[in-house]
Amino acid sequence: MPDGRDRTSGYIADGVHRLQVRVYYEDTDMSGAVYHANYLRFCERGRSDCLRLLGIKLHEPSGPGGFVVRRMACDFRKPAAIDDLLTVETRFREMAGARMELQQSVLREGDTLFLADVTAALLDRQGRPKRLPPELHAAVKSLLESKP
Amino acid sequence: MPDGRDRTSGYIADGVHRLQVRVYYEDTDMSGAVYHANYLRFCERGRSDCLRLLGIKLHEPSGPGGFVVRRMACDFRKPAAIDDLLTVETRFREMAGARMELQQSVLREGDTLFLADVTAALLDRQGRPKRLPPELHAAVKSLLESKP
Amino acid sequence: MPDGRDRTSGYIADGVHRLQVRVYYEDTDMSGAVYHANYLRFCERGRSDCLRLLGIKLHEPSGPGGFVVRRMACDFRKPAAIDDLLTVETRFREMAGARMELQQSVLREGDTLFLADVTAALLDRQGRPKRLPPELHAAVKSLLESKP
Amino acid sequence: MPDGRDRTSGYIADGVHRLQVRVYYEDTDMSGAVYHANYLRFCERGRSDCLRLLGIKLHEPSGPGGFVVRRMACDFRKPAAIDDLLTVETRFREMAGARMELQQSVLREGDTLFLADVTAALLDRQGRPKRLPPELHAAVKSLLESKP
Repeated sequence: MPDGRDRTSGYIADGVHRLQVRVYYEDTDMSGAVYHANYLRFCERGRSDCLRLLGIKLHEPSGPGGFVVRRMACDFRKPAAIDDLLTVETRFREMAGARMELQQSVLREGDTLFLADVTAALLDRQGRPKRLPPELHAAVKSLLESKP
Repeated sequence: MPDGRDRTSGYIADGVHRLQVRVYYEDTDMSGAVYHANYLRFCERGRSDCLRLLGIKLHEPSGPGGFVVRRMACDFRKPAAIDDLLTVETRFREMAGARMELQQSVLREGDTLFLADVTAALLDRQGRPKRLPPELHAAVKSLLESKP
Repeated sequence: MPDGRDRTSGYIADGVHRLQVRVYYEDTDMSGAVYHANYLRFCERGRSDCLRLLGIKLHEPSGPGGFVVRRMACDFRKPAAIDDLLTVETRFREMAGARMELQQSVLREGDTLFLADVTAALLDRQGRPKRLPPELHAAVKSLLESKP
Repeated sequence: MPDGRDRTSGYIADGVHRLQVRVYYEDTDMSGAVYHANYLRFCERGRSDCLRLLGIKLHEPSGPGGFVVRRMACDFRKPAAIDDLLTVETRFREMAGARMELQQSVLREGDTLFLADVTAALLDRQGRPKRLPPELHAAVKSLLESKP
């Protein structure tokens, strides 16, 4: 990884945000593998850190408002295990109105363990859809054009 | 609810398993609503209790083996809030080979807050697909024919 | 259990609140037992349902305010496992100013698996300690005098 | 931070292990702050990464066995909020037989938000206490003598 990258929030290159996530006891269940719902937590970390790196505020200071997940089509392919160092990849697919489409995957050494198509929407403090701000469009454009 | 129903594991009627789930602090996030990944935990409780009522063992005594979620298409429709008493409904759609398809929804007073199409598979202790046992087919048949 | 008890929130008898909690996959970790931090979630469910049965509001409608845990001395005695039907017992020990002391335990068929001394405090919406309301004192008094 | 430190598992200096932990939506509750039980998850990450850096295996390949928490005295001092970058500090206090005593704290910019005294024990695969191995004693000795 090149110097100067903010590792605590992952990094952006090639139009993709990548975040490393370690698997701890808390993430596993009695099968020995990561509990299925926890991949959604890992993906939320990826989305949050991607928006953070883009300079976008995720949420209103308190109460409702901010990004919410509307739809998530999840494909659980292979189990992750404790101590695994996973990579969460986040790709923007489309943005329109209050809505954005992303593809997220969780990988271990290049092997895709989990894949999801995510639709998120921006809400105002009354919980109504709110047009994505121009700075988000600009930021995602710069992400999509990011070089390796 | 008629007497004699085992309430701690919900109940089966009309071909549907229903389980009541209370929303606690642990389930919410700073938006004030239920954190999105927690609907998957609620659905797992519904599936587990449904199979328990049907007399089906969910898992091998230890280690891998048992039912795993392969795919889950999630539709987050409306927010649930603390103190809400939710109902998780589980419906069997199809069973073939090692695989079963279910539809699950989370409702509050008849209003659907969350909806998911779930594909689960049965694995043996080596993590390989394992044909669904005849007693599961028989149990689901009896569920589908259950009267109100 | 006598008729008429509200089972979804447990019940009060003998000066003790008791709530049944089922162990699901989500609660376990790769050791095969319940993940240690999850006993704190079970205890929060017990406290919340006890206050609910006493007619006490747990929290402000949104944002800060409500009961927070200040101290919790936890004793993890024996492991709980999937499918276990646990009982969370909540006892009030002392109330003074903005503070209340409780003892909570998690049992399986009479066997204590987890024990905690809990100090909770009531906060106002600015996050400052707030004197416990007279109706809470009255409600806890009635709990302590509850008959079997 | 000096070059060469393995940041994904934190680092050891001055006899202390330090790990950075970001607060995400998943960690908060409707009060707007971190849900109290989640500090125990953060501490487990600190302990796991500390032992990892010391070259100690945390757990048996599957099933029971490994380190378990026996007691944890928790002091919840100040709330952490979303986006906070926290530091988990882990200090070894004492080791004897199958048992070790640690002190762990969670800080934000030098301010202690959470403090815990932790007793952990090593178990064998039958769940019985197992003497701490000599390599752990040696590793902790080297940690305690680590220079800034």
